[in-house]
Amino acid sequence: MFLYLSFKKSILSVMAKYILSKTAENLIGSGIRKISEVIDARIEKGEKIYNFTIGDYNPKVFPIPEGLKKEIAEAYKDNQTNYPPSEGVAILRNSISEFIKERGGFDYKPNEIVVGSGARPLTYTLFKTIVDPGEMILYPAPSWNNNCYVQLAGANGVAMQTSADNDYVPTKKDLLPYIKDVVLIAMNSPLNPSGTAFKKEALKEIIDLVVEENKLRAEQNKKPVYIFFDQIYWILTFDGVKHINPVDLNPSIRDYIIFVDGISKCFAATGVRLGWAYGPKPIMDKIKNILAHIGAWCPKPEQVALGKFLQKKEEVNQYFENFKSEIETRLKIFYNEFEYLKKEGYNVDSISPQGAIYLTIKVDLKGMKTGSGKVLETVDDILAYILDEAKIAVVPFYAFGSPNDLPWFRLSVGTCSVQDAKDAALALRNALHKLKK
Amino acid sequence: MFLYLSFKKSILSVMAKYILSKTAENLIGSGIRKISEVIDARIEKGEKIYNFTIGDYNPKVFPIPEGLKKEIAEAYKDNQTNYPPSEGVAILRNSISEFIKERGGFDYKPNEIVVGSGARPLTYTLFKTIVDPGEMILYPAPSWNNNCYVQLAGANGVAMQTSADNDYVPTKKDLLPYIKDVVLIAMNSPLNPSGTAFKKEALKEIIDLVVEENKLRAEQNKKPVYIFFDQIYWILTFDGVKHINPVDLNPSIRDYIIFVDGISKCFAATGVRLGWAYGPKPIMDKIKNILAHIGAWCPKPEQVALGKFLQKKEEVNQYFENFKSEIETRLKIFYNEFEYLKKEGYNVDSISPQGAIYLTIKVDLKGMKTGSGKVLETVDDILAYILDEAKIAVVPFYAFGSPNDLPWFRLSVGTCSVQDAKDAALALRNALHKLKK
Repeated sequence: MFLYLSFKKSILSVMAKYILSKTAENLIGSGIRKISEVIDARIEKGEKIYNFTIGDYNPKVFPIPEGLKKEIAEAYKDNQTNYPPSEGVAILRNSISEFIKERGGFDYKPNEIVVGSGARPLTYTLFKTIVDPGEMILYPAPSWNNNCYVQLAGANGVAMQTSADNDYVPTKKDLLPYIKDVVLIAMNSPLNPSGTAFKKEALKEIIDLVVEENKLRAEQNKKPVYIFFDQIYWILTFDGVKHINPVDLNPSIRDYIIFVDGISKCFAATGVRLGWAYGPKPIMDKIKNILAHIGAWCPKPEQVALGKFLQKKEEVNQYFENFKSEIETRLKIFYNEFEYLKKEGYNVDSISPQGAIYLTIKVDLKGMKTGSGKVLETVDDILAYILDEAKIAVVPFYAFGSPNDLPWFRLSVGTCSVQDAKDAALALRNALHKLKK
Repeated sequence: MFLYLSFKKSILSVMAKYILSKTAENLIGSGIRKISEVIDARIEKGEKIYNFTIGDYNPKVFPIPEGLKKEIAEAYKDNQTNYPPSEGVAILRNSISEFIKERGGFDYKPNEIVVGSGARPLTYTLFKTIVDPGEMILYPAPSWNNNCYVQLAGANGVAMQTSADNDYVPTKKDLLPYIKDVVLIAMNSPLNPSGTAFKKEALKEIIDLVVEENKLRAEQNKKPVYIFFDQIYWILTFDGVKHINPVDLNPSIRDYIIFVDGISKCFAATGVRLGWAYGPKPIMDKIKNILAHIGAWCPKPEQVALGKFLQKKEEVNQYFENFKSEIETRLKIFYNEFEYLKKEGYNVDSISPQGAIYLTIKVDLKGMKTGSGKVLETVDDILAYILDEAKIAVVPFYAFGSPNDLPWFRLSVGTCSVQDAKDAALALRNALHKLKK
C-alpha cells in the first residue's frame, strides 16, 4: 500500500513536472513533416526510396547561384557582421523593390519591405500583427501549414475545401459564406501542394469581393479584411502561366494585401533563410516592430550579398532560366507518365504543371488487389503500396487539410535528378501493372 | 457642410483602414532603440558622438573569428544550403554540448539543445512555450526587453526593482512576495544593462526557493515555476568573476530551468544570427515545435561552420582571451575615470566590471548649473548635457524599466577603440568641470 502510494505520487509528480502553455501542449505538428520523418527513418536504414515528400532541394542537384555564394563570402570578408536594421539592410530592400517591380509589376518602396529569416517568420508575424485571438482566418484546403499558423494565433480557422475541378484554387464562391466575418484570408499562388496558380478572372472576383466588403466596413469603422498573399513560388511558373499581381486587378486592394516572398524556392536557398514581406507602410511598420522582438532576422552578410547579387540581372536571369527548365523537365516526366497511365485505364490523374516544384497527382487504387491478395481501401493503403512496390514517397492531400479519403497527392521534384524521375515513373507504372481489379 | 462631412468620412475611413491586432497596436517599442535612433540621426547629420548606447560591436574594431569566417565560406562551397533540421544540425548541437560542458559544467545532451536565429527567437519561443496569457512573469528591472516579451506573451509582468546595493542583481527577498503566483522568472547573468553577475550564495537562495516551491506544487499537481536563464554574456566575465551554473547549486532545478545563449556577444557576431537554448528534453521538444513554425532558424552554412569551428579549441581560446582583454581594457578606462571623478567630489559612481560589455555608471548631476545657467534637474537633463558637452551617448536605466529619476546609465564599449574610450573619459571629465554647484 505504501509502495503503491509513493509510486502513484511519483507518477503524478513526473506528469506535473512539465505543464507548459496551452499553445505548446496543443500544438499540432506539420502533417508533412510527420510523413517525411517516417520516410527518412527508412532511408537511414538503407532503403532506396524516391523521396518526393519534401518541399526542399537536393543542393548537389540544385545548388544556389555561384554569384550569391561569392557575394556572401565577400560580405564576411568585409566584416558585415554587426546587427542588421530590424527591417533589413537598405541595399537589399532597394534591390528587392526593383526586383519585384521589374519582374511582376509590384510597386512597393524599400520602406514598405521587411526582411526576415525566411518566409515563415514573416507569415507568423503577419498573423500576429493582424489577427486577435478568436477572430476568423479563412484559408483553402489543401494548403501548407495555415492550420498551424491559425492555431499559434489562437484564431478561429475556417478551411475552404477546394477541388480538382478548380485546380484546387479557391473561388469567390468559396469565400462568400464567410466574407462578413473574416479578418484575414490566406492565399497562395502558385499553390503548395498542388502546383497550380490563380487565373486572372477568378482572382479578380475574389479581390473585388474583398474591396467591396472593405468599403462597407470602412463606413462602419470596422476592422477590414486583409489578404495574406504567399507567393514564395511566383518566379517558378511554367508553360506560359503568368503570375498575376492582384493589385493590377483592382488597385484598391493595395491597402489590404501583404505579400510574403523570399529566395528559398526560386534560388534553391531553403537553408539560407532569407525572406521578405511587403505591403502598406503602416502595416509593415508593425510587422517590423514585432519581428524585431522575435529576432527572426537573416544574417547581415547574406542580406548585403543578396542586395548586390540581385543587381547582376543577367546572372539572375540565366539562373532562373536554367533552374525553371530543369524543374519543368522533371514535372513533365511525371505528368506524361500519368497521361499514359490514364490512357491505360487506371483511375489516376494529374494537373498540367503551372508553378512551384510540385505535381498534383490523383492515384485512386481503391478496390484494386495486390499480388498478395490485399484489397487497397484507404489513402494510406495506396501510399503504403506505392512506397513498398515502387519505392515512391509522396504526401497525401489530407496532410494539407483535405479529407482523409481524397486520393490526391503532392509529388515534389526538388530533390531528384532527371534519371531518378524517369526511373520512378517507370517503377510506378510497373507497380500499377502488378495490381488486379 | 457637404464638404465637411465627406472630409470627416474620409478621415474616418483612413483611420479605419489599418485596424490591426491589439498586440500590434499596443506593442511598446524597445526603449533602448528609441534612444539610439535619436543618436543615429545626429551622427548621420555629421555630428561626432561617442555612441555608447548600443549592445553591439563595431566589426572593424571587433571582427568575428577568422576561422569561423573560413568555415562559413567552406560550408557554402560544400552546398550546405538546404533546410537545416528544426532543432539545428547535429554537428553543431554536438559541439555546443561539448562547449558548454567543458567551459561551464552545463551537462546537456545534443538532443536537449535547440538552435535558432539568435537568442531573441529562443527567448520569444520560450515565453510562448511556458506561459499562458494572463499568467505571471517575474523579471528584474533594470533588465533588457523583458517587458516586451511579457507583452507579446499577453502575460502579467511584474518587475522587481533592484538597486545598486545588490549590484542590480535580484535577490530571494525580491522574489518572495510573488513566488506562489509566478510561472516564469526571467534571470540574466552577466546582466544587461549593469554588467554585473550573480554571486554564488545569492543565486543559491533563489534556486533553492524555486525548488522548494516546485516540490509543493508537484504535490498539488500544479504548474511549476520555471526559470528562463539568459546567459548570452557568460563567456565575457572579468577580474576573477566566475559564471555560476545554477544546476551545480541545486541539481533539482534542472527540471525547471532553460538557458538561452549564442554567439552574438562572445564572438562579436550579432549579425550572424546564431543562438541556442538548452533545458529538459520535454520542454526543448515543445520549443523546437513552435520555433519550426516561426521558422527562426539560423542558415545551415553558419550552423555547420560553427559546429566545426567550436572544435578548434585552441583558436577559440585565443579569440576569447584577446577579446575579453580588449573589452576589459575599455571598461577599466571608464571605471578608473569614475573613481577619479568620485574622488574629485562629484556625485558619480560605477560598479567594477564583472561581465558583458557594459559598465554601469551613476552620473547624478541634479542641481548643478551649466555654463549658460541652466540647472540640471532630470535624468534627461543629465543625458542631454553629457551628450551636448562631452558628445557621450549612454542609455538611462529607465529605458530598462527603472524609475525615471534614477541617475544610473548603461555604458557599452562594444563599438569603441581604446583611444575613443580615453578621449571620451577625458571629455566627460571636462564637461563635469564646466558645471557649477
